[in-house]
Amino acid sequence: MIIDCHGHYTTEPKDLHRFRKDQTAAANAKDKAAMPPRAGLKMSDDEIRESIEGNQLKLQRERGTDLTIFSPRASWMEHHVGNAHTSRFWTEHTNDLVHRVTKLYPESFIGVCALPQSPGADLASSVAELDRCVNQFGFIGCNLNLDPSGGHWNSPPLGDRYWYPIYEKMVELDVPAMIHGSATQDPQSHMNACHYTNVDANAVVDYCLHPELWELFPGLKIIVPHGGGATAFNYTRMRSIFINEGRKPFEECVANLWFDLAIYDEEALEMTIRKLGAEHVMYATEMWGSAYNVDPLRGKPFDETMDYVNNISWLTPEQRYNVLEGNARKVFSRAKFD
Amino acid sequence: MIIDCHGHYTTEPKDLHRFRKDQTAAANAKDKAAMPPRAGLKMSDDEIRESIEGNQLKLQRERGTDLTIFSPRASWMEHHVGNAHTSRFWTEHTNDLVHRVTKLYPESFIGVCALPQSPGADLASSVAELDRCVNQFGFIGCNLNLDPSGGHWNSPPLGDRYWYPIYEKMVELDVPAMIHGSATQDPQSHMNACHYTNVDANAVVDYCLHPELWELFPGLKIIVPHGGGATAFNYTRMRSIFINEGRKPFEECVANLWFDLAIYDEEALEMTIRKLGAEHVMYATEMWGSAYNVDPLRGKPFDETMDYVNNISWLTPEQRYNVLEGNARKVFSRAKFD
Repeated sequence: MIIDCHGHYTTEPKDLHRFRKDQTAAANAKDKAAMPPRAGLKMSDDEIRESIEGNQLKLQRERGTDLTIFSPRASWMEHHVGNAHTSRFWTEHTNDLVHRVTKLYPESFIGVCALPQSPGADLASSVAELDRCVNQFGFIGCNLNLDPSGGHWNSPPLGDRYWYPIYEKMVELDVPAMIHGSATQDPQSHMNACHYTNVDANAVVDYCLHPELWELFPGLKIIVPHGGGATAFNYTRMRSIFINEGRKPFEECVANLWFDLAIYDEEALEMTIRKLGAEHVMYATEMWGSAYNVDPLRGKPFDETMDYVNNISWLTPEQRYNVLEGNARKVFSRAKFD
Repeated sequence: MIIDCHGHYTTEPKDLHRFRKDQTAAANAKDKAAMPPRAGLKMSDDEIRESIEGNQLKLQRERGTDLTIFSPRASWMEHHVGNAHTSRFWTEHTNDLVHRVTKLYPESFIGVCALPQSPGADLASSVAELDRCVNQFGFIGCNLNLDPSGGHWNSPPLGDRYWYPIYEKMVELDVPAMIHGSATQDPQSHMNACHYTNVDANAVVDYCLHPELWELFPGLKIIVPHGGGATAFNYTRMRSIFINEGRKPFEECVANLWFDLAIYDEEALEMTIRKLGAEHVMYATEMWGSAYNVDPLRGKPFDETMDYVNNISWLTPEQRYNVLEGNARKVFSRAKFD
């Protein structure tokens, strides 16, 4: 079984786009009366089927991926838009929609929820939404944005008590969080080309600065996507800095984390498995994301990366199994994959 | 001749520390009367000699580096402290001090200046300081901070007219800028372990989004340190995104930039030379910086990386020359290296 642990629903029915446009306009204008009503959101099952079968599911079938762990479009979490209420209602819609996909295609998709974070707000509604999605929808994890401000970078460190309620709930439910940024307002930072990977890099270092979290919350499971930004590349730099500062060795701290392979470069992917360990990485493509188009140098889509895993000559059959399936079964332990 | 293109003066005489502490306290208290007077700053040539000979120069001699391109401590540029005046006076002191080092050891050090940037302020005083350092001190470049806010990430894109005055002056004087972050106030971002490399990643992408700068400013020379954050690792991701967005190919845009090898990982260093090209990268260690201590796995300091270059079997003698010396001669073309 091949599990892709990182896919977003990015081909949503068009009325969701209309709804979000109206909602964002009303939030920016601070005009409650202009907020689009939930009842006005029209997305038929046929539209959902069409959006999935011609895109994500078609590629999964062509490429031999059995199942994608599927969540709302990351760039659209946009926790900075409006206030905590805006975020809550919007996030519920997008999670409901992913739930509809998983009900239509239970063998091909299993859900992970976005959380209704909001800059400065506590995590109570995120805890409640995680509970709803796991217990009512059968979701198996969540996406956690360490920078809900969208590029102002003013949230507390990841070891701060601010984050404890969500860690506690994750452990209680036995679900992981994938760290994921969303849209950025930083005028110098391209969301897909560097903001996401910068978020990842911050998360890796910040979690490694706080290894006590794994004593406080035994069973805490954190996934950092895109090879952690470039954790394998900067691995020795980090080892050095952790020694300089008299910290617990970086290599021990980083072993608390899980990483995904939504990396589109053969060498970088191999380096990630080798340096971080086949027991810590999970296959992922992040379809449809930054890499859906064809690489003219290969004549194949950038995100068709299964060959890269299969070409690694030094991977044992057990390691290959863990990368493609076994680790995902461990991390997403609530899932009934069979 | 071996040229290390990236070193900072991080072993400054102790009175500079006293001065900066007093200056920062006065700036934060907005108390002009408490500003330490310039005349009170006491640093003898003997103190400078001691700070250099026992540290930076000792290691240069041991390791066979002939010359370091030397600039003020990056973490201390702290453009966010106080206002534009604070930044200007502080930056002048630190540049003056580097000038004193280069006068004492003209064969071993050549200067690069910090710029008195300040959040929201225009670049007029940076242009003036660059002129002073180049024309009066014989400096051969500058360090440019794309985020003078120190982690709030609110400066204009690097292709914005805001930056034109410094590009214009750089071209007029025929000197490069090395992009370099400074201290960050982001509670989640460790300065050395991820902020600097995130700054680099933003710079690479943002300059690649603005290839027109090289038409507007022929001769513009930009160096991104630390292998561009992790440009080689994310190279294919960026190629994909640039194709997605119908942009000029990433590989063409990135060829406008120069990179340094202040990377402490043998593989990541090799990957950087291979993917970005031996014609675009320069040897660097950033002594004394994040990697001055001994790697217990090698029994050598992390920043002793000359072996890594020498071990690359596929480098031709000409390529090796370019990495260790030739490219620096091209980029720092004002220098009289002999």
